[in-house]
Amino acid sequence: MTAHRARRDRLRETVRAAELDAALVSRLVNVRYLTGFTGSNGALLVGADGTDLLCTDGRYRTQARRQAPDLPLLIERASAAALAGQAGKDGARRLGYESHDVTVDLHATLADRAEGAELVSLHQAVEALRAVKDEDEVDLIRQACVIADRALAALLAAGGIGAGRTEREVGRDLDGRMLDLGADQVSFETIVAAGPDSAIPHHRPTGRALAAGDLVKLDFGATYRGYHSDMTRTFVLGEPAGWQRELYDLVSAAQRAGLEALAAGADVVEVDRAARAVIEAAGHGDDFAHGLGHGVGLEVHEAPAVSPLGSGTLADRMAVTVEPGVYLEGRGGVRIEDLLVVRPGGPELLTTTTKDLVVL
Amino acid sequence: MTAHRARRDRLRETVRAAELDAALVSRLVNVRYLTGFTGSNGALLVGADGTDLLCTDGRYRTQARRQAPDLPLLIERASAAALAGQAGKDGARRLGYESHDVTVDLHATLADRAEGAELVSLHQAVEALRAVKDEDEVDLIRQACVIADRALAALLAAGGIGAGRTEREVGRDLDGRMLDLGADQVSFETIVAAGPDSAIPHHRPTGRALAAGDLVKLDFGATYRGYHSDMTRTFVLGEPAGWQRELYDLVSAAQRAGLEALAAGADVVEVDRAARAVIEAAGHGDDFAHGLGHGVGLEVHEAPAVSPLGSGTLADRMAVTVEPGVYLEGRGGVRIEDLLVVRPGGPELLTTTTKDLVVL
Repeated sequence: MTAHRARRDRLRETVRAAELDAALVSRLVNVRYLTGFTGSNGALLVGADGTDLLCTDGRYRTQARRQAPDLPLLIERASAAALAGQAGKDGARRLGYESHDVTVDLHATLADRAEGAELVSLHQAVEALRAVKDEDEVDLIRQACVIADRALAALLAAGGIGAGRTEREVGRDLDGRMLDLGADQVSFETIVAAGPDSAIPHHRPTGRALAAGDLVKLDFGATYRGYHSDMTRTFVLGEPAGWQRELYDLVSAAQRAGLEALAAGADVVEVDRAARAVIEAAGHGDDFAHGLGHGVGLEVHEAPAVSPLGSGTLADRMAVTVEPGVYLEGRGGVRIEDLLVVRPGGPELLTTTTKDLVVL
Repeated sequence: MTAHRARRDRLRETVRAAELDAALVSRLVNVRYLTGFTGSNGALLVGADGTDLLCTDGRYRTQARRQAPDLPLLIERASAAALAGQAGKDGARRLGYESHDVTVDLHATLADRAEGAELVSLHQAVEALRAVKDEDEVDLIRQACVIADRALAALLAAGGIGAGRTEREVGRDLDGRMLDLGADQVSFETIVAAGPDSAIPHHRPTGRALAAGDLVKLDFGATYRGYHSDMTRTFVLGEPAGWQRELYDLVSAAQRAGLEALAAGADVVEVDRAARAVIEAAGHGDDFAHGLGHGVGLEVHEAPAVSPLGSGTLADRMAVTVEPGVYLEGRGGVRIEDLLVVRPGGPELLTTTTKDLVVL
């Protein structure tokens, strides 16, 4: 039995428990998780009776057969609607659907096609399965992290982060090194944020040249066979000013507190709190305006959210980031981010680049 | 008055005509079109009374102020919900929303927050505005096309497409050249599909080496200040076989027929038909399993769809692709794609690379 079939069978348990006749999976990344199919149009029907059906359009016929050889294939452009129609024809009375993905317009179409079947929310059931990785997935995430670590090491060894280079040049250099090292692509647009720009949490690299005295924040990742890495490191160009070292030490202490709180059974809000309390105690609570971390897998941001707005507890084999940051508008910011897998004996660190303050 | 304010005022006319109190714009690319804000979380309220309100979260406070300095800013993580709440507090009775973007779950949240206001579909009103470009937008698309044309010319001049290179190497080379020439990023993952892979319309580059006798299909684009280009060319490595030349001539004839049909007032289905008829007459109708073209702008695929499934007519200053293809599974395929702007005197061609069969 393939890994994909095993995942579909886990979803099937949910389908049966909810007394659904089938689940209609329309979110593409969930279709990929359950089938291996990577096209840009597709949907999947997972039946309580043990049958599955994949649908895509004519552009992806060959690819779908190659990537999901064990699945019957329906070719139709409006893939989710076609599968709702199929479920209706098969006599489904209760059809699960992804209410967090299906738009109001698509819902109307599905209801129309489903021949009277009741549409019932799946409540992100596939995302819940995806949050806990199997070891094959952890291996791919680990390899993605290795690529990112090595690319950064090579960039540093080549003197690639230095005064005079622009944010954009540094980003492209790093991206090229990740691709050279086997990344399928970069996980997201690499953030290189120097000087005052480092105070912008999600800054796009510009033509601004790095200068002595700058904090330089790099947030980047590699994708390997669909799985992502995610890591942030902040450097300083030249001898750090007192405020820069203080800022770095503060974020560093908060990050350690977050790592220590990372355990199966821990409430995600409490894990966030462990790190946030350190920053609040230093009077910078308002300068840390994002969550502590997030799950990483087929998406670079996925469940669980480790944040004041999150809910639930961590479980073994969840892959999550720990990334506190403090941003002083107009001056500069520091973020330190690791990716870890929750394990019984304490978290497994996947991003191994040093977190000591590196002076360049 | 800024271009963004002018666009919001055009939407405001729709808001007033539909007797709405405000429009809640949640699709990020539409928020960008109407405000200039490029963050990954945001929503916009366009009021019938002439007031507008942008909402994003704390990560984007600085960026939003910089990119949309003329707009009042609300900081809240759940941006669309926050604006629905604001509209409700302001006494809105009828609130427009993007039913093609808002999920079933988000709709429930908006309804809950809107204090009794009725949620009314905007029916892709912003996409309809976006389909017709202003000249500033055409300029940016033109520059994106120039970058792509020049990058391909440089790749060819350097002998970058040849036997022994892998699809992935060719793609990275081309991508690097687009970035060198000023692209912000690539428009989408560059397609390099050689030999039998060229029969896969949307193929991801692999480690397969190009070989003599291969058809090599390149589909790629540059992004310049948010605007995309999109172009496909198919080459042949070495003297073409008879079937390859026939295939190329067929697609070429279909593409010319499509270009000739491209005029303001033309029904999109008829434009598609003009090209498709040529391919059907040659007995290859089933091997052309996608639409003839699509709009291009802030998205690489946007309105209008020039396809058997499309509806409506073309208008001046629409930017659309014309890209027939014929794919022979297991053997190879040819696609030829241009990007053009509909003009009163006939379409303006933005992608100027030759469409003669280039033998490498």
